[in-house]
Amino acid sequence: MFSEFTEIPAQQCWKDTLIQHVQLPSFLLLYNNTSILMMRSTVTFYLCYLLCLALGLACVACVCVWNSRWRGGFAWDGSGLQFNWHPVLMVTGLVVLYGYGAVVYRVPLTWGQNKLPWKLLHAALMLGSLIMSILGLCAVFAVHNAKNTPNLYSLHSWIGITAIILFALQWGVGFAGFLLPCSPVLLRKLLKPVHVWLGGSILLLTTAACISGINEKLFFVLKGNVTYSSLPPEGLLGNSLGVLIIAFGLVVLKILSNIKWQRPDSRPGEIAYTVSV
Amino acid sequence: MFSEFTEIPAQQCWKDTLIQHVQLPSFLLLYNNTSILMMRSTVTFYLCYLLCLALGLACVACVCVWNSRWRGGFAWDGSGLQFNWHPVLMVTGLVVLYGYGAVVYRVPLTWGQNKLPWKLLHAALMLGSLIMSILGLCAVFAVHNAKNTPNLYSLHSWIGITAIILFALQWGVGFAGFLLPCSPVLLRKLLKPVHVWLGGSILLLTTAACISGINEKLFFVLKGNVTYSSLPPEGLLGNSLGVLIIAFGLVVLKILSNIKWQRPDSRPGEIAYTVSV
Repeated sequence: MFSEFTEIPAQQCWKDTLIQHVQLPSFLLLYNNTSILMMRSTVTFYLCYLLCLALGLACVACVCVWNSRWRGGFAWDGSGLQFNWHPVLMVTGLVVLYGYGAVVYRVPLTWGQNKLPWKLLHAALMLGSLIMSILGLCAVFAVHNAKNTPNLYSLHSWIGITAIILFALQWGVGFAGFLLPCSPVLLRKLLKPVHVWLGGSILLLTTAACISGINEKLFFVLKGNVTYSSLPPEGLLGNSLGVLIIAFGLVVLKILSNIKWQRPDSRPGEIAYTVSV
Repeated sequence: MFSEFTEIPAQQCWKDTLIQHVQLPSFLLLYNNTSILMMRSTVTFYLCYLLCLALGLACVACVCVWNSRWRGGFAWDGSGLQFNWHPVLMVTGLVVLYGYGAVVYRVPLTWGQNKLPWKLLHAALMLGSLIMSILGLCAVFAVHNAKNTPNLYSLHSWIGITAIILFALQWGVGFAGFLLPCSPVLLRKLLKPVHVWLGGSILLLTTAACISGINEKLFFVLKGNVTYSSLPPEGLLGNSLGVLIIAFGLVVLKILSNIKWQRPDSRPGEIAYTVSV
């Protein structure tokens, strides 16, 4: 019932035009803009999530191939072969498993369900990651001790050990604060933003530690006839691993930082921090 | 006018109790919870901002002392002294000036004012940062070329050059999209989240590049009688520089990620992306 001079809302106007002139069935236009935006957000999330899963697998494959094909494989005897466990465990545990564990709550499929199983999965993945990174530390300490090389002197090791100490504290406090039924709601409320921020920060630390570690290792091992500066296949593979780790870290941080991809009961401004937090 | 059995709102109740029994002057209770939360948020911001400024200055001081006191100072003649400009320009430009430029809009003092001068300051700081990082690149390329050392083979250099290319693209697209008056509003709307995300990602790349670069440099120069593994004063200073850079990056990313510290007209859900965006 619009007269010729009535101001027609823009949204109504383009819908009418589509129905009348482009002959689109009107049911196609029943979805309002909010539904379309939500659908687009969900599709984008799953694309990012798939990319995250694929990059994680590529990181693991790359570090395993590097250490088995070019570094002689694995052992647990204080030799150089034991050292090879260090990059494999750190990349697989402290980067990939950690990243997978960090984004568990973002999967929209889980939002309508009870949060407890997903909290347990998050805690289990993080515990697996922590155990692997401690084993990775043991591997390098054993090799250093066998060769009388000091531990924890390089910048790489300072950042790596800081990341693991913070991670262990984060896991312990997270378990006590979010999984023990006796922990008060107020504590959960105060703890949550710190837990989320520290989680992202640990990922930044582990990424920096991995990049410096790969760079250091390639300078150590590519000497003599085949130098790193000639970029032999091993150097190319190591560099590619570093690029994959950076890409993985960026995708995980992207998923974590998008408010639309947070579980609805955890978003700022919603009724958050209930007992299920 | 509450009867004995009327349900008194909790907030009113504790205010009345304080006025009647603790004898607090009532004007002290005029501020409602929202004002208190806003004030707390502002105070926390300024503490973080001061920490950011202080850590940035500490990074610059540390890298300058390292290269003037232990590495022999500066020159622009293709010698090792020219190389010393590389870490100084990269840390000062690509990390510290970049970080300062990134958080300009977050300062609450600027929120009530016209956005244009702050956009110009943001662009100017970022341009200064970009020019310094290109000079830093020139310094290392000149030294490599003089010594017939290949360029861009290490993981450190791959990540560093990626960061600078992305930064140059980011600056160019940002200038065209947000500063040229002819750029359409729709373009600004589409561009802004990408610009913000890429800005944070570049900071992650530069942090990883700096950490790997410092680590590599310390292994290169601390050989012979005074090895890196004995952690001499130069090693300690280099490691401290790395820790300061990580701390600076974390504080900047913390400031950028807090929605409450975003300029009100740029927050999600507000009337954002007007011509002043």
